[in-house]
Amino acid sequence: MPNIYVSEASAYVDQETTIRGWLYNKRSSGKIQFLLVRDGTGIIQAVIFKPEVPAEVFQHGEELTQESSLVVTGTVRKDDRAPGGYELLVKDLQIVQIAQDYPIAPKEHGVGFLMEHRHLWLRSSRQHAVLRVRAQVIKACRDYLDQQGFLLVDAPILTPAACEGTSTLFETDYFGEKAYLSQSGQLYNEAAAMAFGKVYCFGPTFRAEKSKTRRHLMEFWMIEPEAAYYTFEDLIQLEESFVSYIVQSVVAQCREELAILERDTSPLANVQPPFPRITYDQALDILHQHGKEINWGDDFGGDEETLLAEQFPKPVFVTHYPARCKAFYMQPDPDRPQVVLASDLLAPEGYGEIIGGSQRIHDLALLERRIAENNLPREAFEWYLDLRRYGSVPHSGFGMGIERVVAWICGIDHLREVIPFPRMLYRIYP
Amino acid sequence: MPNIYVSEASAYVDQETTIRGWLYNKRSSGKIQFLLVRDGTGIIQAVIFKPEVPAEVFQHGEELTQESSLVVTGTVRKDDRAPGGYELLVKDLQIVQIAQDYPIAPKEHGVGFLMEHRHLWLRSSRQHAVLRVRAQVIKACRDYLDQQGFLLVDAPILTPAACEGTSTLFETDYFGEKAYLSQSGQLYNEAAAMAFGKVYCFGPTFRAEKSKTRRHLMEFWMIEPEAAYYTFEDLIQLEESFVSYIVQSVVAQCREELAILERDTSPLANVQPPFPRITYDQALDILHQHGKEINWGDDFGGDEETLLAEQFPKPVFVTHYPARCKAFYMQPDPDRPQVVLASDLLAPEGYGEIIGGSQRIHDLALLERRIAENNLPREAFEWYLDLRRYGSVPHSGFGMGIERVVAWICGIDHLREVIPFPRMLYRIYP
Repeated sequence: MPNIYVSEASAYVDQETTIRGWLYNKRSSGKIQFLLVRDGTGIIQAVIFKPEVPAEVFQHGEELTQESSLVVTGTVRKDDRAPGGYELLVKDLQIVQIAQDYPIAPKEHGVGFLMEHRHLWLRSSRQHAVLRVRAQVIKACRDYLDQQGFLLVDAPILTPAACEGTSTLFETDYFGEKAYLSQSGQLYNEAAAMAFGKVYCFGPTFRAEKSKTRRHLMEFWMIEPEAAYYTFEDLIQLEESFVSYIVQSVVAQCREELAILERDTSPLANVQPPFPRITYDQALDILHQHGKEINWGDDFGGDEETLLAEQFPKPVFVTHYPARCKAFYMQPDPDRPQVVLASDLLAPEGYGEIIGGSQRIHDLALLERRIAENNLPREAFEWYLDLRRYGSVPHSGFGMGIERVVAWICGIDHLREVIPFPRMLYRIYP
Repeated sequence: MPNIYVSEASAYVDQETTIRGWLYNKRSSGKIQFLLVRDGTGIIQAVIFKPEVPAEVFQHGEELTQESSLVVTGTVRKDDRAPGGYELLVKDLQIVQIAQDYPIAPKEHGVGFLMEHRHLWLRSSRQHAVLRVRAQVIKACRDYLDQQGFLLVDAPILTPAACEGTSTLFETDYFGEKAYLSQSGQLYNEAAAMAFGKVYCFGPTFRAEKSKTRRHLMEFWMIEPEAAYYTFEDLIQLEESFVSYIVQSVVAQCREELAILERDTSPLANVQPPFPRITYDQALDILHQHGKEINWGDDFGGDEETLLAEQFPKPVFVTHYPARCKAFYMQPDPDRPQVVLASDLLAPEGYGEIIGGSQRIHDLALLERRIAENNLPREAFEWYLDLRRYGSVPHSGFGMGIERVVAWICGIDHLREVIPFPRMLYRIYP
């Protein structure tokens, strides 16, 4: 008698099989019990008819509580009325453990309580669906880049230099030296791109920002492609193909999950290249028309991003930002050096920035000047300057925050639900 | 005229194309120059005949130094004498940047010097090959587990509890609380396995160990599968299939890289299930026969592992370790509770441990006792104990160190070469 997973039930119709899982929910009426059994791959209805099983099997069914673990044997039946389309006609039922007073009852709980029980909350259908979408987003990212000839080259997490000031960095003692948790693998990516042409890194990144918004986590995952000889135009085309591939792959592979999340997928169907583009100056006009007071040179906040993104049915690129509100390494526009060849990609439906990217400065003297202007510790950047000394070439790259993309695709407001164990301000348990 | 990558040359025979890259090496004899051009995907020989190009193109060729960046246009020719089998008959050549005094000359350098220039060293053929193998190992890990229905569920890096003592942990301030960089995602994996059945996490892990051996890094990547309802036997079978898949996938996909590394692949061809198994007690006998003085209950060090692994032509499992030399969460053997259902997998050819795995304790009272015996802070483990309160089931998992596997497959002694930017004792630059 094979042990099978719920997701395989369709291949075992009319066969006797064993499923090992947990009780998700149940109902009964006299001589018949309906057990909803989850095993991590899906939920199947196991049906116990009192006349057809030994008394103790029926008794076991009655004893089962929510999240009790069980091993159930029976015949798979196709039944269109059953949730999922298949059910199991029970012959035998073993209790592994009775769960007493499972804390997450099928009723409303506060978010604080659920976060405190995140290790159990993961078992609920909704969280389950979100994290399956997350896994598919990550798989799609890798598949796309691998297919396009990008090589995975991992960037280090422990870094010596504080790229953009230390105020938002987690610091640790590294055998007597100060080290910081990486906020981005980009600088290392640039070294790798000069060796391998097209590369990406993908790992956790950290930001010790004392902010408590729905769009920030202290620990989040970022995928960062970087390519030698890529112009700003090449970069934008890569970004729109990449994002479209990811969205369409989730729409195709995660129908059931998106249905559980009650996600209207029609806006997602729009996500196909090309994406609209506006310059920073055009964005400023739009914001002014909507009564926002913002000056040329200011960066946009979450509210501005939302407002801009609402004007378009697809993700929109905002390009050519003022140099002064962007990072030191971004390439100035040769036609107008006060703006840089950088773009943010804003997701629609209020989700805002999901990607930031730019062409990088490849001229040694200019990069040295920018490092000095930004009061960065020159010594820590010597290796990075070497990339402009030895065969420097134009190159470009971007970083995409996984959690923001998952939140957008799932239609979920708060990032805390789209990572298995969120790290937020004052939240590091479990 | 298409821009192409060297790896695509075979598809453009007799066509005019442009390749953008760097000068790897060159030689010339009078009227002819042979430029070895690398672009990250491979190396192609670009041939300049003086009579067939404008004088300035030939002049450019002469000016090029090692690692200068260039854009070269010409016709692809199949030529079995050329390295790689194709060459480019040059029509035009643009210099992007002349690299002056590239520090890594084609001669022997000390390891310290090379590590200091790791950002450039990555460009050399050998490092290139190693990191391509690394990317393939990681891809194979994910492909295998995805195909087998394991779901990627990321474990957090910042963790509150110090699982196995704080002496080897990197610590950071988390808004007034102490937090530690994760040494393993396992405990979180166990929560995820109870939600999703079969899961894995894959990310960087950290060990602040003041040791300077060829087999340790402070920051390394680990892949950790965990499965509900998996017995110790299921686990071992998963491990041998997983490792065999990875090795055979690299042998098939990275022929060229393994050739550059002069790796004898015949020992790798052996890596097919089943793997031999010996118990800890049998291992002790072997060690005693070889004159090692080691007592029952002691853990094995690198030397012992090497000696044991040398006895077998394939990776070998050592099973049933004394409970006292293993972690608190490991399931005792029901037939002999002083040993645990744990195994280490030792790679042959002197590479030693690549995997550690075990069945986990699923009984609440036993786990509570083990936490107390190990003087662990009970409070930090309450959520972990919850997994034994609410539908506890037998479950098993393992962790595999990516760098150790890459080193073994590449036939490289020291882990510092198998990660792009190694973090070692007193080495955190670049």
